[in-house]
Amino acid sequence: MDTDPKLQIRRLEKALGAGAHTDARVILQSMYPADVADAFVRMKPIQRSVLVSLYDDEELADFIEYLPVTDAVDVLEGLTEPEQAAVFHELPDDHMVDLLQEMEPDQQKESIELLSEGKKETAEDLLRFPDDSAGGRMTTAFASVRADMTVREAIHELEQIKEETELLSRIYVVDENNRILGKVRLRDLTFSKRSVLISEIMDNETLAVKALADQEEAVQMMARYDLMAVPVVNDDLQLLGLITHDDAFDIQEEETTEDIEKQSGIVGAPVEESYLQTSVGVHIKRRLGWALVLAVLAISSGFVLENFGDDLKRARILMIYLPMVVAAGGNTGGQAATMVIRAMALGELTPGSLIRVVWKEFRIGALIGAVIGLSIGVQIFFSMGGIDENSSFSIGRAAVAVAISLAAQIGASTMIGSALPMLAKAARLDPAVVATPAITTIVDVTGLLIYFGCARLILF
Amino acid sequence: MDTDPKLQIRRLEKALGAGAHTDARVILQSMYPADVADAFVRMKPIQRSVLVSLYDDEELADFIEYLPVTDAVDVLEGLTEPEQAAVFHELPDDHMVDLLQEMEPDQQKESIELLSEGKKETAEDLLRFPDDSAGGRMTTAFASVRADMTVREAIHELEQIKEETELLSRIYVVDENNRILGKVRLRDLTFSKRSVLISEIMDNETLAVKALADQEEAVQMMARYDLMAVPVVNDDLQLLGLITHDDAFDIQEEETTEDIEKQSGIVGAPVEESYLQTSVGVHIKRRLGWALVLAVLAISSGFVLENFGDDLKRARILMIYLPMVVAAGGNTGGQAATMVIRAMALGELTPGSLIRVVWKEFRIGALIGAVIGLSIGVQIFFSMGGIDENSSFSIGRAAVAVAISLAAQIGASTMIGSALPMLAKAARLDPAVVATPAITTIVDVTGLLIYFGCARLILF
Repeated sequence: MDTDPKLQIRRLEKALGAGAHTDARVILQSMYPADVADAFVRMKPIQRSVLVSLYDDEELADFIEYLPVTDAVDVLEGLTEPEQAAVFHELPDDHMVDLLQEMEPDQQKESIELLSEGKKETAEDLLRFPDDSAGGRMTTAFASVRADMTVREAIHELEQIKEETELLSRIYVVDENNRILGKVRLRDLTFSKRSVLISEIMDNETLAVKALADQEEAVQMMARYDLMAVPVVNDDLQLLGLITHDDAFDIQEEETTEDIEKQSGIVGAPVEESYLQTSVGVHIKRRLGWALVLAVLAISSGFVLENFGDDLKRARILMIYLPMVVAAGGNTGGQAATMVIRAMALGELTPGSLIRVVWKEFRIGALIGAVIGLSIGVQIFFSMGGIDENSSFSIGRAAVAVAISLAAQIGASTMIGSALPMLAKAARLDPAVVATPAITTIVDVTGLLIYFGCARLILF
Repeated sequence: MDTDPKLQIRRLEKALGAGAHTDARVILQSMYPADVADAFVRMKPIQRSVLVSLYDDEELADFIEYLPVTDAVDVLEGLTEPEQAAVFHELPDDHMVDLLQEMEPDQQKESIELLSEGKKETAEDLLRFPDDSAGGRMTTAFASVRADMTVREAIHELEQIKEETELLSRIYVVDENNRILGKVRLRDLTFSKRSVLISEIMDNETLAVKALADQEEAVQMMARYDLMAVPVVNDDLQLLGLITHDDAFDIQEEETTEDIEKQSGIVGAPVEESYLQTSVGVHIKRRLGWALVLAVLAISSGFVLENFGDDLKRARILMIYLPMVVAAGGNTGGQAATMVIRAMALGELTPGSLIRVVWKEFRIGALIGAVIGLSIGVQIFFSMGGIDENSSFSIGRAAVAVAISLAAQIGASTMIGSALPMLAKAARLDPAVVATPAITTIVDVTGLLIYFGCARLILF
């Protein structure tokens, strides 16, 4: 099994292309489903259906888990009803529900009808939870035992369900009302005397998330307490399901994408489809809002600029360095906002530290501003000598004016960039709302005011 | 154990503040170490040392794992040598190595001298790997058995090491040269007949990462193949250690922070310290470079602006809408760059799809540009009527000129924002190098050219 996945994918594609189905099946069986899924999403419909036909129901269920949900639903739709029923039977229940959530209502109803009695009930229970809640992501195929059982009884009970259970390493201990009391690890059972009571060996850790909590809460709990899985409970603390480490990875990836996109002014949850699969309309819907709002806000910069228009006519040097001074604020303010937003997302920083953060950013901004201001001032002094020869000011004065305004703009923008996300958080808004695009728009205005203010004080 | 962590932290702080050490110890023992760590990092040195003195060596080792490494090293330095030795003895070896990596060379040498023979050897072996490599992050406390053992022999062998082993749910099967052959799950052992051979029940999956591979590779493999842990091997495929799901979380968090920061022009790996702990000097070192480079590049925008300076004098309306048209390019180009960079990071997109992506972004940009351009055009037509009363052009013409240049700037910027990161990747550069700050600087120039180009064609 240690062949290079890329090589295997090429061999598979070649075999399918040549119609060599027996060869293709042999290659397929030596491959990890995740690698086959990679090849599948790039295949043409005809090749896709041949590939699907080469798998038996169990293999197909295993393979479908690694496909993007939209592709997985497509595969299911191409199957006969008995095949669909067989695949659903093999799928872990959290994946089954992911697929049902993705379907159109009609199709969802038809698919639920194909399920066995037990699975149908599970599906209906799970579909009641929003798909980004802990309940919407959990599996119900977890292992639980009672505290008053002996190890022998517990092992016997687990043996009955071991095939369906997704994670057997963590076994939850519950009372007669199915309320969580603690947990045992499989190793505790395996290496204990058979006559010992579960209550004697259990760990009375009862960390759990509510079913209606955001899925992100489950992941944060796993990361914080180094857990392999988090139990999901209802309001009466009864155990309903489990979110496992592999779900947590997927959730963390989705949430990170959302955070990154928000910081660039892209709204809404990331779509399940990949970038290329997502329609132009959906892309526009997620991007247009902020782009339009920021465009309207940018009119204010325009009025400031127009107000100082006469100053520009009096000094060519002011025209040349205007875009730089304004842009330097956006760049350094954006850096500060990014650092602060990330630190808050990681729980390292709370709005209570506002003063300490702004004081820190003041020093950082002042020093970065001093270095860049001085560099540009020197550059102006030595290379721009003749630019405003008939004006009333010397090139030295112009260099000083640009350098000071550049330093002041960088210092101010760094402070603004760090303070605004913290103030947003204090006001219970999402800090990402005042990320780079909004900061840039704001410091465009401050930059123009600082620039022309310095010019009037020093030059004219 | 189900009290609210915040409440527990407040009670702990109160007890420590009042000098009620017995109460503090009772509260401490009812708390999760992760919650204590949260309180600890905000405490004054005196309170910190009292808290540390309330723990015994085993509890302290457990607690230290949840502290940021710099704080953990501080705690260790405050202990006597026998206490240090006892805590090191209790620490899992990957955490022990994290702490040693953080120490100054002298202190590291002293600490290694305190270790028992076995631990000393492990530490010296592990310290040879770079701290962001798979080898630098792995634990050597993993479980392995031979394929020709019976289940009875395997269980007997595992029983000897069960206390030290970090993850017993995955047991790796090796040959006589310690090369990996496959794996068994603990459940396979627990529920199998004792006389069965390991080779009969093992799964011959041999997925592993090389010890010198980047730690990110291990995480990508776990996410891709839904693994609970990834074995780490040397060049001869001999099993050296294991990266477990909880390490993977930490690694993923670090790597995400690095990606987010890079996209704002912050260079270098994120530091281990939290935002506030990081010195002003380190912050400046990570941010100054790009800020300076972009400032120098922004001079080119200035020359373009200066070149068209006379046009600005002829139409006040051009002055007012200049900042908006330029900024709209930065915002929409930044959105496109963010989406494409994230899609490449998730493996959804490769540079081979350049044409398809640019064609998609052309349509997205053209439509967003049309909507925003039209909105602003209408706004100009109805509210800016008297602005250039003595000029040769009507307000309608001015509205058309601004609207068209705005739409063209958004369309061009969206295409540039998506294409540059892909071209960077194709050239084997980091796509984040051409993220928002660089894109903004580039589209500032194109924006000015488009704006004045349209003005000259339509207005003058």
